[in-house]
Amino acid sequence: MQTRILRARLLEAQLDLAHRREQSVIVLLTGHAATHKGRLVNELNHWLENRHTEVHALGPSSEEQERPYWWRFWRRIPDRGRIGIFIHGWYGDGLFARAERRLSPGAFRDRLAEIRAFEAELAAEGVVLLKLWMDIDRSDQRHHLQALQADPVRAWQLTTADWQRHLQHAAIEALGREMRNVTAVDHAPWRRLDFRDPPEQLQRVGALLHETLVAPPEPPSEVPEVMAGEMPAAPSIRRADPRTKTSLKKSSYAARLVEEQGRLAINAREAARRRLPVVLAFEGLDAAGKGGSIHRLTAALDARQYRVHRIAAPSDEELALPWAWRFWRRLPADGRIAIFDRSWYGRVLVERVEGLAPEAAWRRAYAEIREFERQLLAHGTVLGKLFLAISQEEQLRRFKARAATPHKRHKLTDEDWRNRERWDDYRQAIDEMFARTQAPGAEWELIACDDKRRARLRVLESVNERLEARLASPI
Amino acid sequence: MQTRILRARLLEAQLDLAHRREQSVIVLLTGHAATHKGRLVNELNHWLENRHTEVHALGPSSEEQERPYWWRFWRRIPDRGRIGIFIHGWYGDGLFARAERRLSPGAFRDRLAEIRAFEAELAAEGVVLLKLWMDIDRSDQRHHLQALQADPVRAWQLTTADWQRHLQHAAIEALGREMRNVTAVDHAPWRRLDFRDPPEQLQRVGALLHETLVAPPEPPSEVPEVMAGEMPAAPSIRRADPRTKTSLKKSSYAARLVEEQGRLAINAREAARRRLPVVLAFEGLDAAGKGGSIHRLTAALDARQYRVHRIAAPSDEELALPWAWRFWRRLPADGRIAIFDRSWYGRVLVERVEGLAPEAAWRRAYAEIREFERQLLAHGTVLGKLFLAISQEEQLRRFKARAATPHKRHKLTDEDWRNRERWDDYRQAIDEMFARTQAPGAEWELIACDDKRRARLRVLESVNERLEARLASPI
Repeated sequence: MQTRILRARLLEAQLDLAHRREQSVIVLLTGHAATHKGRLVNELNHWLENRHTEVHALGPSSEEQERPYWWRFWRRIPDRGRIGIFIHGWYGDGLFARAERRLSPGAFRDRLAEIRAFEAELAAEGVVLLKLWMDIDRSDQRHHLQALQADPVRAWQLTTADWQRHLQHAAIEALGREMRNVTAVDHAPWRRLDFRDPPEQLQRVGALLHETLVAPPEPPSEVPEVMAGEMPAAPSIRRADPRTKTSLKKSSYAARLVEEQGRLAINAREAARRRLPVVLAFEGLDAAGKGGSIHRLTAALDARQYRVHRIAAPSDEELALPWAWRFWRRLPADGRIAIFDRSWYGRVLVERVEGLAPEAAWRRAYAEIREFERQLLAHGTVLGKLFLAISQEEQLRRFKARAATPHKRHKLTDEDWRNRERWDDYRQAIDEMFARTQAPGAEWELIACDDKRRARLRVLESVNERLEARLASPI
Repeated sequence: MQTRILRARLLEAQLDLAHRREQSVIVLLTGHAATHKGRLVNELNHWLENRHTEVHALGPSSEEQERPYWWRFWRRIPDRGRIGIFIHGWYGDGLFARAERRLSPGAFRDRLAEIRAFEAELAAEGVVLLKLWMDIDRSDQRHHLQALQADPVRAWQLTTADWQRHLQHAAIEALGREMRNVTAVDHAPWRRLDFRDPPEQLQRVGALLHETLVAPPEPPSEVPEVMAGEMPAAPSIRRADPRTKTSLKKSSYAARLVEEQGRLAINAREAARRRLPVVLAFEGLDAAGKGGSIHRLTAALDARQYRVHRIAAPSDEELALPWAWRFWRRLPADGRIAIFDRSWYGRVLVERVEGLAPEAAWRRAYAEIREFERQLLAHGTVLGKLFLAISQEEQLRRFKARAATPHKRHKLTDEDWRNRERWDDYRQAIDEMFARTQAPGAEWELIACDDKRRARLRVLESVNERLEARLASPI
């Protein structure tokens, strides 16, 4: 195709992408040093409508370093309708660290598995991926680097890292091959580009991007698992009995509450001192007492340390991105506590039962959630997942009490009554959620809440146990 | 009022705020050290519904240090319906720096003037402010600090800064008085709190917050100016003639384009090297050629250095915050370039002419914009404001050409034809905008665009001139 025609068609396809706002596109370039990546990106960018394009090539900021590794990429995913161009993206980091032996072979393979999971999740959510590997042979690379060094205008572009990567050419070549083998899938293919003829290279990239835009690959129906394995035994709401024969006396409750809150204050302070992030996810049946329990918890915390995130319907900015984005954006910095009042589990609870997400989407979500939580844990996060359950009779009693109390009436909505009609569907979804997202370090705590006092104490106790288990571990 | 009743009413007022989602509330505490600020915030927070509350007490991150001073506060403003509690907020910084003589008296006064402007802007946009000054006399403070130091459980809370602030008690007292005098206004009053009786103190804060929630102060109708002064002469679209007798030949255009783009590449690289942020605002009549001009500009830039922000209708997240927030959030980090394709001037152009903003809001915006740009400049930003004008005849010619060309038809909307009917209203608004937002370092460049080639060259030239003027200055 003639360059002029290709450019016109590429632009047309991009405007169509921007107009439809159904998908976004990521073009990722990585590979050897001295392959004109910067120039290629500039020229490609010049072919595109720059109001719908963004280029990402920066190192991590302090805010990024204080959060799980993948946060820095999640926050840069382009909105539907936009094209994001990533130089090295999530590949360069592991590739060069491995070439310099700062990363072990096993850790490198783990990173590749994470990449597979990440890209599958993006692709399934409408992010189309085009990955370009920049090739150059060792002697061409040397000539190019020498030419750069000799050129007074461009010599500043060279860094010692470029020469180091030249010395590691063979290692990068071999690692790149392994990397591409493991991460080349239909929904995220690799293309190799030779550096020799820049105009031809640009033409090729333009044609590949055009092809990607007009005929994007099929999204995957499943996301791969980084750490599939035996799952620990999970609780079951259908087997549990949230009723209690005797209720806890007010005086013994008050004494134990003060005790558990004191214990939590000490644990939270120690977590802050050690810069451990804490993420607590609260789920539960309507009127089980999430709000009250969270309140007893935060009463023991320093207000500067935590934030409660109430998860309701997504905003329009959130709808323009993969569903998990709205949880990633709320992750706490190291040393801080994020409390989610409802959480990413909505995907496999309300969105499943009410048909708000397609079946393929919520089925895929179990693996996505397992991977999300694995990444939190890998960063050192203390993760607590609490499910508050009540019996059907107790729920009815509380609904009626709310309806009768003026200052509590706002807490009761039509939706609460509707959800109640689907009691069995919810219980099935809840048990499947428990079974499929139970993992070491990410265990569910199912709390019987018919007795409010016992329930609140158990919430505090459970969070304390998780914190203490983590604080007692040497790493 | 009894504590129990006060708590119930406070909570009710907060839920009403959250339900209406019309206003947000900021409670700011500052003042002397050792006044139990942390404890007070914790207790107050315990009285509130923590799903609608957030507490801010952190120092600036690297991302914040790389942007104009006020960015760190703008990004933390609570959404409508929420309460944000700020410990020291935008006061502690200047107060303690002045007490330690790291800030000169004049710079301290300037900061107070900035605070007045900032708070007026927030208040006018529905952010209700309650400011608390924490009082303690010098000997009580010493006793309190000594008691803390002797307590093995709480001694870690003490820092050398606390003792330093004790030594500076008299200075902080005097500066605090000056600060309160200058910044106490009806829409952002100061309240003094004595530290002596903590339960009474909490009760007082609760009552003040309740009062603020049920009877918020009237928002100001105007925002004060930090630097009112003579304005340089501004251009006028009604006096200008965008027509050109002869059009520039294609060959001389091509040669001069390459020249200006080369000049821009060098200037932009030098700005990046010196970590200067660059903000370019493009405004113009429909079909004047903003897109094409921006394209010629970005063609000369490194794609990793810039981003084009196309300003269209605000998102729902943006609507939950003061109008200027959506421009603050897009400010570039140091060394980077943000190009706004339409900008904050929409407030006094389309929003004014089409009646999308109330008259009081767009009238107030001139001062808000002057202050916004002054803050960009104070941070060292290179600011370019370009207005692209065409004659009515040329616009009609271009509209017709667009309608006739398949791949350009998408650029022409009904709105374009509607705007054309208000040609005179727009020209009046444009001239008022020029006259009222012309300032040293923030001068408008009015570019006659009937000849596209000359216009594109002038855009490049103008940006180059601004960059070179800044790069030539020693600071």
